Amino acid sequence: MSTPTSLSGFPELLPAQRNAELAVIDQLRATFELHGFANIETRAVEPLDVLLRKGEIDKEVYVLRRLQSDDDTSDSGVGLHYDLTVPFARYVLDNAGRLEFPFRRYQIQRVWRGERPQEGRFREFTQADIDIIAKDELPFHFDVEAARVLAEALAALPLPHLSLQINNRKLIEGFYRGIGAHDPGAAMRVIDKLDKLPPEKVGAMLVADAGMSAHQAEQCLALATIRRSDTSFVERVHALGVGHELLDVGLGELAAVLDGCAAAANERFSVEADLRIARGLDYYTGTVFEINMSGYESLGAVGAGGRYDALATDGRTTYPGVGISFGISRTLVPLLQRGLLSSSRSVPSAVLVALVDEASRPASDAIAQQLRARGIPTEVAVSPQKYGRQIRYADRRGIPFVWFPGDDEPDQVKDIRSGEQIAADARSWAPPIEDLRPQVINTVSSEGQST
Amino acid sequence: MSTPTSLSGFPELLPAQRNAELAVIDQLRATFELHGFANIETRAVEPLDVLLRKGEIDKEVYVLRRLQSDDDTSDSGVGLHYDLTVPFARYVLDNAGRLEFPFRRYQIQRVWRGERPQEGRFREFTQADIDIIAKDELPFHFDVEAARVLAEALAALPLPHLSLQINNRKLIEGFYRGIGAHDPGAAMRVIDKLDKLPPEKVGAMLVADAGMSAHQAEQCLALATIRRSDTSFVERVHALGVGHELLDVGLGELAAVLDGCAAAANERFSVEADLRIARGLDYYTGTVFEINMSGYESLGAVGAGGRYDALATDGRTTYPGVGISFGISRTLVPLLQRGLLSSSRSVPSAVLVALVDEASRPASDAIAQQLRARGIPTEVAVSPQKYGRQIRYADRRGIPFVWFPGDDEPDQVKDIRSGEQIAADARSWAPPIEDLRPQVINTVSSEGQST
Repeated sequence: MSTPTSLSGFPELLPAQRNAELAVIDQLRATFELHGFANIETRAVEPLDVLLRKGEIDKEVYVLRRLQSDDDTSDSGVGLHYDLTVPFARYVLDNAGRLEFPFRRYQIQRVWRGERPQEGRFREFTQADIDIIAKDELPFHFDVEAARVLAEALAALPLPHLSLQINNRKLIEGFYRGIGAHDPGAAMRVIDKLDKLPPEKVGAMLVADAGMSAHQAEQCLALATIRRSDTSFVERVHALGVGHELLDVGLGELAAVLDGCAAAANERFSVEADLRIARGLDYYTGTVFEINMSGYESLGAVGAGGRYDALATDGRTTYPGVGISFGISRTLVPLLQRGLLSSSRSVPSAVLVALVDEASRPASDAIAQQLRARGIPTEVAVSPQKYGRQIRYADRRGIPFVWFPGDDEPDQVKDIRSGEQIAADARSWAPPIEDLRPQVINTVSSEGQST
Repeated sequence: MSTPTSLSGFPELLPAQRNAELAVIDQLRATFELHGFANIETRAVEPLDVLLRKGEIDKEVYVLRRLQSDDDTSDSGVGLHYDLTVPFARYVLDNAGRLEFPFRRYQIQRVWRGERPQEGRFREFTQADIDIIAKDELPFHFDVEAARVLAEALAALPLPHLSLQINNRKLIEGFYRGIGAHDPGAAMRVIDKLDKLPPEKVGAMLVADAGMSAHQAEQCLALATIRRSDTSFVERVHALGVGHELLDVGLGELAAVLDGCAAAANERFSVEADLRIARGLDYYTGTVFEINMSGYESLGAVGAGGRYDALATDGRTTYPGVGISFGISRTLVPLLQRGLLSSSRSVPSAVLVALVDEASRPASDAIAQQLRARGIPTEVAVSPQKYGRQIRYADRRGIPFVWFPGDDEPDQVKDIRSGEQIAADARSWAPPIEDLRPQVINTVSSEGQST
């Protein structure tokens, strides 16, 4: 990581670290595109009135000003976006007549927040968002689809164990109504604090702030303890003996979403119904998601999202949606900073073509071009040093193969990790497929080093 | 393009346009990586003293301020970067002990300039830079390499005809010294105006501002008219009858660079020695580059670069380099805005799996998963409308194939462009390779529509 220039909260990566980040971004993109999600990017700035519509986070916005502006107010009306949801909603309204709905989009961009930097919280960071948005109505099966796409994307990442926690606001609200709670919204905002406060305290707040009886608070807490990786959570809820029509709708939706993404689970990724998740924000109306990284719970959720019935509205048309945001920087940077995540080399090159002498540079260049023509990233040695030094040049960068041009004999290629050296022809030789690109090295996962 | 929210100079793309931009970025990245260039990104902000080191462009910098900052000066010391060279130089100094030199890097990021928006000039835009940087000394063969990599990258782009113009400051300076000019630097800054002013005017300025005689000015202009796509420019220069040691060095270097990238020329890309190019900036010391787009000369150069003997220095060590910056937004946005460049579809999906009825959604989902498992981007129809409407859904998005699940019979797949429909199995069928991803549609190039 860069240190000397003291800009806290603006992380930068070394090339080998960036290779790991690129591998994650490429993998996310591949999954999103396989499912038909279109990529967009929005401008980095928005008018302040767009940014401040939510009201609550104005402290975090960076406002722009031209350094030598004659008119002091000329650009003072714009700031850097602090998430990808607000700009996406504005983009949808701006382009409503030119987009096809339902509109599946993914967006991978940096965002900026002027908050105090701490571990996993940065002033500049990268997020990956997917959303499906429709005009007027978005059928429920899109909730299942969004969860499935995200689950497949996360399951394919070369990272420590990630989990997708799912809940449903209809389920919670129906349950709260079923026990006779007067203000389910207030209760949800309190329950949302369970990841920071002990249950006793949350229970007391349910009584004090959400007007519940001690028994009602107890039932809320009992609901919030239910976590299941299969649809057996339905029986557990039924066992609490609460009945409400909205509860049944929520249970059905949550079971369908869980069923829809269960197949994506693997040794590095799990899915569960977690009835603690409330996502206090008012705009979620059904399915809610959180992503957590095992062993890094102190970072908080590394992703979140859900179903909202009005992402945007222009007065005539309403655009409901379902989506989720994954914090790429929040997930990766703490691992990279600890040295738990990296990649096998600092350059894309799989092969270094050695140089016999300066006069034979064209011959070495020609070999490199033959390898590149077949998709093998290759560089040529800088100078005709002794072969031992040329091999060390490759080794320092993690380049796995060194190519020795033959004079009259055939060329030779050496795997400098194993020492194995064989005769080879640049028109046909290829490295093992896993050596073609830098490998992500993850020393966190339970298997130790894996890719 | 987005219009309603009036932020002039901050272009945004529709999904089909973004597909064209993504294809360009992916192609650049592929070429750079084949040649062993590592990717980095730098933070978007730099301390103002880093940004203002060049002095001349302070008017264009966007300064950041936290909206509700208690301390008015807390963040006032940082601004958004206006190019990728200044941040790269700072990154190299910050990380000098952790990078391997010579360091080949590419960087594709947005930059911001608060200047007045006009065609091809934006307040937020994307650039692609490559540089090779070394410690203390960078052998000349890297000039050849940088030119070759860039030439290959540009030649592969699905764009209107691009040309790479190359010159050499040693050649110019040697020639100027050879004719007895007293201030070659002043003369280069004047000659650099030839793309904006007529030769007579530039000639008069050479006399008035660079202290030349009328004959010397005439010789300078004669040199600047030489443009050749092969090394015959050497004879043309010799024919002017001027001799100087530095001129010979420059002629040799320019011939070597031109020779090194001549092979990349094709019907959409050309390379030439253009002895008009001076790149007035003081830090270039040898090879200089410009990229131009045929038919869009009014945009000015869409890329530029060269050899500099001190990209960065920390007092003890100097980092010479050679590099070039390609303006992705400057090249693409004018074409996209005119509708001359787009892509064949607004979604990644190559296939839409039709829906017989809502109950058979799992069957259609299973077909989609089989196609995706083999790398074919696929989406499932939103609702079980009549097949005619499902086909129109695909057509509006440019999805080329619609898949009809068979009941007892085999499935069928229809190419909705040709109308051809065949029996197919989702475990083995694949679209033609060119239909797998959105195609770039370029209606500018001389062949008409091409990809």
